[in-house]
Amino acid sequence: MGEKPNLLVTSSHVKGRFDELTTYTKVYWLDELDDKGLDRLLPSIDSILVQTLWPDSLTPERISKMARLRFIQSGWAGANHIPFKHLGKRVMVSSNAGGFSVGVAEFAISLLLAAAKRVVRLDNAMRSGEFGQADWERFAREVVQLRGRTTLGILGYGGIGRAVGSLGRALGMNLIAFSRHPSTESDVRMFHGGEGLLRVLAKSDAIVIALPLSKLTVGLIGPKEFAAMKSDAVLVNVARAEIVDEEALYKHLLKHPRFTYATDVWQIKRGKETYTSKFPLVKLPNFIGTPHVAGGSSALTGDPGKMAAENLMRYLRGEAPQNVVDPSEYI
Amino acid sequence: MGEKPNLLVTSSHVKGRFDELTTYTKVYWLDELDDKGLDRLLPSIDSILVQTLWPDSLTPERISKMARLRFIQSGWAGANHIPFKHLGKRVMVSSNAGGFSVGVAEFAISLLLAAAKRVVRLDNAMRSGEFGQADWERFAREVVQLRGRTTLGILGYGGIGRAVGSLGRALGMNLIAFSRHPSTESDVRMFHGGEGLLRVLAKSDAIVIALPLSKLTVGLIGPKEFAAMKSDAVLVNVARAEIVDEEALYKHLLKHPRFTYATDVWQIKRGKETYTSKFPLVKLPNFIGTPHVAGGSSALTGDPGKMAAENLMRYLRGEAPQNVVDPSEYI
Repeated sequence: MGEKPNLLVTSSHVKGRFDELTTYTKVYWLDELDDKGLDRLLPSIDSILVQTLWPDSLTPERISKMARLRFIQSGWAGANHIPFKHLGKRVMVSSNAGGFSVGVAEFAISLLLAAAKRVVRLDNAMRSGEFGQADWERFAREVVQLRGRTTLGILGYGGIGRAVGSLGRALGMNLIAFSRHPSTESDVRMFHGGEGLLRVLAKSDAIVIALPLSKLTVGLIGPKEFAAMKSDAVLVNVARAEIVDEEALYKHLLKHPRFTYATDVWQIKRGKETYTSKFPLVKLPNFIGTPHVAGGSSALTGDPGKMAAENLMRYLRGEAPQNVVDPSEYI
Repeated sequence: MGEKPNLLVTSSHVKGRFDELTTYTKVYWLDELDDKGLDRLLPSIDSILVQTLWPDSLTPERISKMARLRFIQSGWAGANHIPFKHLGKRVMVSSNAGGFSVGVAEFAISLLLAAAKRVVRLDNAMRSGEFGQADWERFAREVVQLRGRTTLGILGYGGIGRAVGSLGRALGMNLIAFSRHPSTESDVRMFHGGEGLLRVLAKSDAIVIALPLSKLTVGLIGPKEFAAMKSDAVLVNVARAEIVDEEALYKHLLKHPRFTYATDVWQIKRGKETYTSKFPLVKLPNFIGTPHVAGGSSALTGDPGKMAAENLMRYLRGEAPQNVVDPSEYI
């Protein structure tokens, strides 16, 4: 066990990318340990790097045996998959907020444009042969010009939210945001609290959800929030499916055919992202769905992994890590 | 017939928008004239404002009777629908280049992102229930991060091309362009001539066609040009379908499943845009098609109509109109 602290990394998939960590810690790869080896290691683990979802093998019982555990670094931008209620009070958890900002923001804007410009809908109509000359004017009227004529509401103004804002600004959209933090950007008007949320929703032609999932945000977008939105608004979700009340969403889409919901995220059940819904959302023409690929393009650049490792090294060097989350927002 | 010159406007659809013109000219609306009235008016027509495609009723025989015709203003950004070969040498033609730049550039970027981020493809997979967990990595690998990693090649660097460039720049893409004019933007490298075109195609991860259709550009993108492109490039057409050789396109799409063609424009036959192709393009998963709606969002703002009217007034006041096209490029 030596003098260096022990780090457990949940997948050896990206071995080689984390060589620098060995300056500060001894690295163990979860998928290279058998049950016995893992159980022997538990009492000496100081920190964990969780690359994707929290692994099934790190059960509450095993967590209880990690007496020296002090720090968990999430590889994902969110931290909602970390089992906070089983962690001791001395365990600090950092998210990887910012690591995926570029790729996720690009994807959010792609979904926004695919919805606002009716790309998916029109392509489907052309593909099925349903489009006739007579439909042209109706469709063309729905293809709105964004520049100088539309407002983009961003829910959550962290790394991803700001990156979305910067692209929305380049498109000439007016920017407003829902955030508990003040803005440092003079052209973004900030709102907070329940009333603030309703005002952002009411003013926006397109809305991008870029909030972390926590007990403060689960089910945040429900019947009252949908009712506040413009009937032809576009709602984009690149955060977590659970922030939106699915039943309220489904009813709203049925009632407002010119409203569009475009999502890259799906409910997580038993540790797996489902890619389905109990409501037949994918049957609706005003729904766009992609299978959580927004961050994939960033992950493949290696940048988010590098950011997670750098933050972990901050902790290992005795510096203050960034993006430390408040467990009380998750338990 | 009075002292003012006579203007013929091809559709009364937008009557009221052109009141200012009456300061300089007497306005006649083509669709309010019967055959007799039109024939009586022909010899006195000084200028024509063509709002969409050239109307069938203005036959070559009737054109030959417009002895006083000196100026034609196209309401569309292109001028390829104007019957140049039937016009006298003293007739000047202006396109409405620039009028649709904002809306068309927004739509071009929407198609580019829908293709590069696989939005249409993934939505189709989710919709049909074809997507399985096992497909995730393959798809996620195809969703490339644009910022700092990709090159946007723009064919034609006029009003629309520059507006596309400005959005590509905001997305962090490296910019190159094919144009016969030098660039005034230091971060855009320009290429010209046949070899220049091939170099732009070879370097680009995404290509946007924003050229006018003329005899210089008809069939410009053929087998040799497709062969020069990256096998996973995205080709976006918001200009005219006839710039791309359809047979070469179809063969290329079949041979390169990761190459995507996204078009808003379709072959024009007998004065109508067809929205179809003699090749089964819409059956291919790497084809995205929308029914020429890019400019619609701009048209609805009224800006292009205003720009066309302003240019017409330049002519009527005896000033030099803008966007005068060279007939020899069309005949």
